[in-house]
Amino acid sequence: MSAAPPSHDADAPLVLREDRDGVATLTLNRPKARNALSVGLMTALQQELDAINEDRSVRVVILTGAGPAFCAGHDLKEIRATPTKDAYDALFAQCAKLMLTITRIRPPVIAKVHGIATAAGCQLVASCDLAYCSDLARFATPGVNIGLFCSTPMVALTRAVGRKAAMEMLLLGDMIDAEDAESIGLVNRTMPADQLDEVVAGIADKIAAKSPLTLAVGKEAFYRQIDLDVEAAYAYAAQVMAQNMMAKDAAEGIDAFIGKREPVWCGQ
Amino acid sequence: MSAAPPSHDADAPLVLREDRDGVATLTLNRPKARNALSVGLMTALQQELDAINEDRSVRVVILTGAGPAFCAGHDLKEIRATPTKDAYDALFAQCAKLMLTITRIRPPVIAKVHGIATAAGCQLVASCDLAYCSDLARFATPGVNIGLFCSTPMVALTRAVGRKAAMEMLLLGDMIDAEDAESIGLVNRTMPADQLDEVVAGIADKIAAKSPLTLAVGKEAFYRQIDLDVEAAYAYAAQVMAQNMMAKDAAEGIDAFIGKREPVWCGQ
Amino acid sequence: MSAAPPSHDADAPLVLREDRDGVATLTLNRPKARNALSVGLMTALQQELDAINEDRSVRVVILTGAGPAFCAGHDLKEIRATPTKDAYDALFAQCAKLMLTITRIRPPVIAKVHGIATAAGCQLVASCDLAYCSDLARFATPGVNIGLFCSTPMVALTRAVGRKAAMEMLLLGDMIDAEDAESIGLVNRTMPADQLDEVVAGIADKIAAKSPLTLAVGKEAFYRQIDLDVEAAYAYAAQVMAQNMMAKDAAEGIDAFIGKREPVWCGQ
Repeated sequence: MSAAPPSHDADAPLVLREDRDGVATLTLNRPKARNALSVGLMTALQQELDAINEDRSVRVVILTGAGPAFCAGHDLKEIRATPTKDAYDALFAQCAKLMLTITRIRPPVIAKVHGIATAAGCQLVASCDLAYCSDLARFATPGVNIGLFCSTPMVALTRAVGRKAAMEMLLLGDMIDAEDAESIGLVNRTMPADQLDEVVAGIADKIAAKSPLTLAVGKEAFYRQIDLDVEAAYAYAAQVMAQNMMAKDAAEGIDAFIGKREPVWCGQ
Repeated sequence: MSAAPPSHDADAPLVLREDRDGVATLTLNRPKARNALSVGLMTALQQELDAINEDRSVRVVILTGAGPAFCAGHDLKEIRATPTKDAYDALFAQCAKLMLTITRIRPPVIAKVHGIATAAGCQLVASCDLAYCSDLARFATPGVNIGLFCSTPMVALTRAVGRKAAMEMLLLGDMIDAEDAESIGLVNRTMPADQLDEVVAGIADKIAAKSPLTLAVGKEAFYRQIDLDVEAAYAYAAQVMAQNMMAKDAAEGIDAFIGKREPVWCGQ
Repeated sequence: MSAAPPSHDADAPLVLREDRDGVATLTLNRPKARNALSVGLMTALQQELDAINEDRSVRVVILTGAGPAFCAGHDLKEIRATPTKDAYDALFAQCAKLMLTITRIRPPVIAKVHGIATAAGCQLVASCDLAYCSDLARFATPGVNIGLFCSTPMVALTRAVGRKAAMEMLLLGDMIDAEDAESIGLVNRTMPADQLDEVVAGIADKIAAKSPLTLAVGKEAFYRQIDLDVEAAYAYAAQVMAQNMMAKDAAEGIDAFIGKREPVWCGQ
């Protein structure tokens, strides 16, 4: 949640995209508003994610924020400016779609969290496939403090961490530090701030070197099987596995492994 | 599970209630029976929870036990005294309703655990929204040791902690200590015994200062969305969020936040 | 995943079974192939598990591997030898059935992991009711490295550990060590290699001393209730509990507890 004044550089894009060796870095770019998720920023991020999903050159996405904050959640001033049920319905539907898109686009998405990630910003972290943070990062779902329970962030949070930990964050609304965020499973790992860029770049490069087909197959299957009962999940996953075996990249990967050589992926 | 002699002070209420500044403390009061959940005690606790749900002066509930134990589970002597299937059906249906009621009443419920919490006593801890314990607390689901697997406690336990940890507690039936209970997520935090009252009072006061409407909206949404698949959960939570925005307390909270002043809740 | 040469001792059984005091130890026995799950080995393991399910003398199962590895997953050379969709469908259906069988046979199954457990070998660990490992054990779901995402291992992995931890193992394909495996909940406990046999034997003996009826009731209920929403889970578990109360072993166990004597189980 942010009540900071909006950025006045109206010409700057709300989301920056930089590509390098199959890794697309998306930077939330409203630093003066602590990257609050205005309708404009959400629309821009949705467009970038949709474009990336169609762009076969992208194998991994890094999501980060400009300035000191990762993301401070929704833009409260904007929200209060059009206080109608229709506007709110549209806003939260847009936000839910955005979060689901992160889990549905082909490439894995890594949250690189260097500063505060609160409310829908915390939801972004919970929604990403992987998350790494600096020891300066802080996390909260503080909606309860302003009369607006973090109900949509809760959907992602409760699927990432245990119930007691999630409920404490939601009911108290307090900031938790990076170490606690790692210990409850909200992020994969915390590290000194000066190592974050290098570590995340290394992880992104490592994933980008794998077969993009295999990554896409696996990521889709991850989220589809997890909401099924175990028998249905196995029936589905066994099909996915058998089909994956018919792909050229699986034959190549297995033959390279048996032959003790490096595989060459064709992405099919 | 308790086979201790029942308390003989027949005039003492089975559950004590004390209210202070929006915080209702419910104390299981069969100390000589280690607060075993007799039908009488469960009935009394159900009545208190139902009454609290209708009582707008209560914003938070603390659940604790009189004497050295938190709660030793069902009352085994009572159970064996009427060994019919009908009596058992009624007993476990009553217990299940009681546990679900904890998650369904309006105010958050905090378990304050100073001693042993076993079988259905452990289930109480797992069922509360939050749980804090003394480093003297101990937890177990020991039914397997007496031929009666903790199947209903398991419902709450497996929703609070990971599968391997839950299965170990259930199959071995051993006591685990407070530190392990925190590490697996059964409680939010463990602390020295002499700090428990103060810490829990502080957390309760903090929650009691928030909008009761917001707490009620969020708690209900927490448990409703968590059993849905993610798409349905978002569709539901987005609706909850938009409706929450229309509440006076959300407008007040956001305006207070933007205006950098303290909000004044009306509970609507 | 294993590309090691297969064992040449064609006469040795692919799965060894040794029984002692109600504990059946099943040892995957293709040590030169790092116990890769060939069709033959999976068939042998399925037969042993099915037989154990009918054998009332067995109260607990320990699953382990011969040689330095626990299990290196599917047999890649065998897989590539019959590269048809039908063969793959049959293979992964067989594997899924095998993993589900572990959770469905009457006695609890304990994974004793002394070495690497990768791909479907890691899935075995995740699928067992309990898992203990040596500090020399290593775990991975490395299919992504050979173009074949570990989609079926994922079903078991994501039900044992948190999403972020599971996704990291699946996307990176790296080995994690024993300590990390414990910290994410993939195993119950890690310990020095020279203690593993004794500790697991102690746990198995402890479980074997409990009522086999109670263990069977509880294990079945564990996996059935966990895929239900909480209300349905309680309705089901309350029935299980009431029926369990009608068993002779429950009456005996409770009476022994009240009488402060050791129970004598009849298994009914």
